Amino acid sequence: MSTEIRWPEPYVVDALRAVGEASPLVFGLTNYITAGLNANMVLAVGGSPAIGGNPAAVEPLATAASGVWINLAAMVTDSPELLLRTARTAHAAGTRWVLDPVTVGGGIQVSDDLAAQLLAESPPTAIRGNASEVIALAGGGATSKGVDATATPEAAVPYAEKLAQRTGSVVAISGPTDYVTDGREVISVPGGHPWLTKVTGAGCSLGALVAACLAPGTDPLRATVAAHAVLAVAAERAAEQARGTGTFAAFVLDELTILAEGLST
Amino acid sequence: MSTEIRWPEPYVVDALRAVGEASPLVFGLTNYITAGLNANMVLAVGGSPAIGGNPAAVEPLATAASGVWINLAAMVTDSPELLLRTARTAHAAGTRWVLDPVTVGGGIQVSDDLAAQLLAESPPTAIRGNASEVIALAGGGATSKGVDATATPEAAVPYAEKLAQRTGSVVAISGPTDYVTDGREVISVPGGHPWLTKVTGAGCSLGALVAACLAPGTDPLRATVAAHAVLAVAAERAAEQARGTGTFAAFVLDELTILAEGLST
Amino acid sequence: MSTEIRWPEPYVVDALRAVGEASPLVFGLTNYITAGLNANMVLAVGGSPAIGGNPAAVEPLATAASGVWINLAAMVTDSPELLLRTARTAHAAGTRWVLDPVTVGGGIQVSDDLAAQLLAESPPTAIRGNASEVIALAGGGATSKGVDATATPEAAVPYAEKLAQRTGSVVAISGPTDYVTDGREVISVPGGHPWLTKVTGAGCSLGALVAACLAPGTDPLRATVAAHAVLAVAAERAAEQARGTGTFAAFVLDELTILAEGLST
Repeated sequence: MSTEIRWPEPYVVDALRAVGEASPLVFGLTNYITAGLNANMVLAVGGSPAIGGNPAAVEPLATAASGVWINLAAMVTDSPELLLRTARTAHAAGTRWVLDPVTVGGGIQVSDDLAAQLLAESPPTAIRGNASEVIALAGGGATSKGVDATATPEAAVPYAEKLAQRTGSVVAISGPTDYVTDGREVISVPGGHPWLTKVTGAGCSLGALVAACLAPGTDPLRATVAAHAVLAVAAERAAEQARGTGTFAAFVLDELTILAEGLST
Repeated sequence: MSTEIRWPEPYVVDALRAVGEASPLVFGLTNYITAGLNANMVLAVGGSPAIGGNPAAVEPLATAASGVWINLAAMVTDSPELLLRTARTAHAAGTRWVLDPVTVGGGIQVSDDLAAQLLAESPPTAIRGNASEVIALAGGGATSKGVDATATPEAAVPYAEKLAQRTGSVVAISGPTDYVTDGREVISVPGGHPWLTKVTGAGCSLGALVAACLAPGTDPLRATVAAHAVLAVAAERAAEQARGTGTFAAFVLDELTILAEGLST
Repeated sequence: MSTEIRWPEPYVVDALRAVGEASPLVFGLTNYITAGLNANMVLAVGGSPAIGGNPAAVEPLATAASGVWINLAAMVTDSPELLLRTARTAHAAGTRWVLDPVTVGGGIQVSDDLAAQLLAESPPTAIRGNASEVIALAGGGATSKGVDATATPEAAVPYAEKLAQRTGSVVAISGPTDYVTDGREVISVPGGHPWLTKVTGAGCSLGALVAACLAPGTDPLRATVAAHAVLAVAAERAAEQARGTGTFAAFVLDELTILAEGLST
């Protein structure tokens, strides 16, 4: 029982326009594999990204930013304590923040523990993961192989609803069709393209895009839906022109540029 | 005295098809400059990459993975101990692994010592480097300027044979023509394009591609040859269409996508 | 009162040709978000880049290199002490080096202190930043929002002149028009494209390109101007063909390749 939303749904267009008008500072902790693409996606939609766990900078940045995203894959270079500190700062400053629970449920105990502590201490505005990660975070027992989902998004929807009700966060599940819920309403976002799973960091960029769309103050459910709908349409258009994953990644950024610049006049 | 192999040699095609069918988890430690391209190449050929030295994750990942690659340039962020621990775990678990001895012989003592310790403790399934690195690793005295080879691949072949006989590893030398040996047979792989040396991480991606081709259980010599032959043909086709190194990098990924998706039907 | 210089000003062409002929080793410390693009730009103009703060390697590399750049955003992974040690080594070895004072004046005290210490201990050959950073470094009080400039380049010129006189460094300000000064002469470099601010690391790449152009021994003012003029023309040509920021980034590298390879015959 879900409502389907896709570009150019007016509230999606409005959410994207708000990013371009506010040009918000969006701060992220993520891993070095995906950081460049994440930053370029935020820039393409009109945000101003800063990424990285310089220990002296996370508190000023999490305070000054209008949106923060924390991807647990940041643990490749950053300590769990640094991630906790950043979330606490964002939470205390009233900065909306997004948790991307990469690898949760995949057998890395320290990730699972950190995610649980983040949810308990500093509940995020939104959580965005694949089906396995959302099920694991909600207390189900799915396992990830690396960062790939092995469960379907549809199977994860009841877990997402429960997780949203428990945490007060909007919860989004990525997949062939994406699902976004605040624990009451479930929105489905069709579209995208399988090559999004073949470009490293493309999925992770959703965490950054959700933070960018939350930053101007848009309703959290709608902002989270908007981020997914914008990437879905950009990916569809990019795939029509691309021959493989290399040009696809470049064309996704091009299509985001075209969508965003088309609204700024 | 070498046998020339190039795409579409049947065993090369078979090795690539096996990657697509197994979709193996391939785990790498490398530096942040090349990680994104490495991951995208593994994805393009159908593997499932995970990269990075989260200290709590390297043991689970090196155990769960079907292939591992360790690039000594990882020392930009990871400690020598972490690299040793990863190799030991892979070795103990029977996970095939690839050593990319970047900078060995270039005057960084800690890299040279680490490479020697890795070979002694946890002999890799394959070693892949440029001519200078292979000569240095075999006990010759070549020096690298940064990460560029100053010796020719042809000059390095006898060193590669000796190194393969001593370690039991397959040894590959990258250059205008690549050479791969198990200490008995020497295979030459022509092709590629000089722009591969003008895209950061393109050479390093061979380490990741070798790990991906080893992962499904293909004969180590053939798997290593296959990785080189697949990148060589993709680079040749990409260069025909590209005007410079920016589009070249994107087109290499496109050509890998086309090769891999062409086999999966 | 400034002199306008643009490609193909003969000394700019000569500076670029010198890079291709020397193929200098250029060593950089920067953050992981921008490292790949920085390296690819240096490669495209004919340099040989090495990036990254392996503690055991910074001294050999800063000694062996002909040019070094230090971007304060490196503090995402590297300690202030490592940056100081690298600058001291370059200074002691007579290696020309470039400071990119990213985030200085933006409220991160440790960055401001580190920049001041670098200038006092190991004055760089050139400094390259945006208007806010240059004003802050010169003792004015501009503030950065993340890494974006909020002051105009024109307003920063008097600060740049003062800073150049005090340090003996060439000082460059990036913006819609770039300005470069040695404290006596002011050169303006028009061109470029706004999308340069929409691709992460494109601005930071100027630090790397200045180091590459300084490496062969070209007059520091002219080398710094040349780096800016080369990127400006490449960006203009790339923007004529690109639909958005994804292809733009690839085409900038293509145009740099074409400029550099056009001189090497």
